[in-house]
Amino acid sequence: MEEDYFKNLSDRERAIFEGGISMGALYHQFVGTPVSIDTCSSLEHAIEESILLQPAVIDVDVSLNKDLIKQSSGTMGYTSLEGNMLNIQITTKINEISVCTCISYMEDLDYPLMYIKD
Amino acid sequence: MEEDYFKNLSDRERAIFEGGISMGALYHQFVGTPVSIDTCSSLEHAIEESILLQPAVIDVDVSLNKDLIKQSSGTMGYTSLEGNMLNIQITTKINEISVCTCISYMEDLDYPLMYIKD
Amino acid sequence: MEEDYFKNLSDRERAIFEGGISMGALYHQFVGTPVSIDTCSSLEHAIEESILLQPAVIDVDVSLNKDLIKQSSGTMGYTSLEGNMLNIQITTKINEISVCTCISYMEDLDYPLMYIKD
Amino acid sequence: MEEDYFKNLSDRERAIFEGGISMGALYHQFVGTPVSIDTCSSLEHAIEESILLQPAVIDVDVSLNKDLIKQSSGTMGYTSLEGNMLNIQITTKINEISVCTCISYMEDLDYPLMYIKD
Repeated sequence: MEEDYFKNLSDRERAIFEGGISMGALYHQFVGTPVSIDTCSSLEHAIEESILLQPAVIDVDVSLNKDLIKQSSGTMGYTSLEGNMLNIQITTKINEISVCTCISYMEDLDYPLMYIKD
Repeated sequence: MEEDYFKNLSDRERAIFEGGISMGALYHQFVGTPVSIDTCSSLEHAIEESILLQPAVIDVDVSLNKDLIKQSSGTMGYTSLEGNMLNIQITTKINEISVCTCISYMEDLDYPLMYIKD
Repeated sequence: MEEDYFKNLSDRERAIFEGGISMGALYHQFVGTPVSIDTCSSLEHAIEESILLQPAVIDVDVSLNKDLIKQSSGTMGYTSLEGNMLNIQITTKINEISVCTCISYMEDLDYPLMYIKD
Repeated sequence: MEEDYFKNLSDRERAIFEGGISMGALYHQFVGTPVSIDTCSSLEHAIEESILLQPAVIDVDVSLNKDLIKQSSGTMGYTSLEGNMLNIQITTKINEISVCTCISYMEDLDYPLMYIKD
């Protein structure tokens, strides 16, 4: 059983662990994907369905930054998905404990930060 | 102008070049994505829309191998997309010349081969 | 300050979170990379140096499964890196607390499991 | 035999096709990788060895844009590899015909263009 490998973690610790895994996975799987304003919604939908398959994930909300995508789509009409275009919440749940893992671009850090929202 | 950089290629050569780029891109962007029988269609749709953005691409047909996905989805209920699950055709067109670039798993080579179909 | 965003996590929780992120990142960044017996060591080295850059990571040990890589390298002489070829340990540390995040292929699950080793 | 699938291409067409595949592969495999000034050389080396495995590739020269990597490495000390940081040449050869496929960031297009150099 998968659970046998997690006896050393509390429910909250495991929910945090699985949230981290799925956010790291999502970022590095999909950054680089060709995207434009017109294809945002199919990409958002595929990301959500794909990450929902991961262990303990019960909800995924993906909102790509359309302003930034439009602004980055130069003469070629599209761009590559970048980390600072991601606004995402992943909810993981172990038994009764759920945790919300987020990524947002933080202006003060100039960095797309992954963090836990309470 | 983008075209200035391709004066050394015939229309057919450039259509072949762009087909190769887009097939290599697709493979290495999406291999590794979590996928199950239930999420095949959203992933196929997102891949098609994404690759259609690439230069010279006028049609993309993605058909993932459901038998192989089902068979690879063990106790966890999903698998990672692998190259031998891909059946894809990308049509590229430069002026009046179009070319169809394919990937299929070839049993004799035990390898997902990219080739041009006439 | 980056730390301001993590006031809701204990040191152990944050070490677990960052371990999960980096393992998910590593998997989905590098799965699909062309690899053979002869290129294992340069790939292992690049993965280690790359993941060491991530927040809170103080040690990374990557050992690819050479038997499986050899066995998967058919007529073409190489294969694509797959999750079940990964044996990896990532150590993350927050203040005095360090945590070891692992991935290994588990035969009983037929799945490359990510877990915390104590 | 692999060659049986390429009877419809001239040697030059196939060299162009394989160059396109390998450049598309490289871009979408490695864009997103954590990188800093200090890890450039191990990443360049791993990319070169990995892409050399691909069909028909006889030489790969990867030079990442260190100025851009330094400039993009903010408070966190590293960045994610982006397409406009790539200066790469891939040489493919079929029988006596070799072709050099390049990617460089083009200021006039604001786009990392893949093209064939004669």
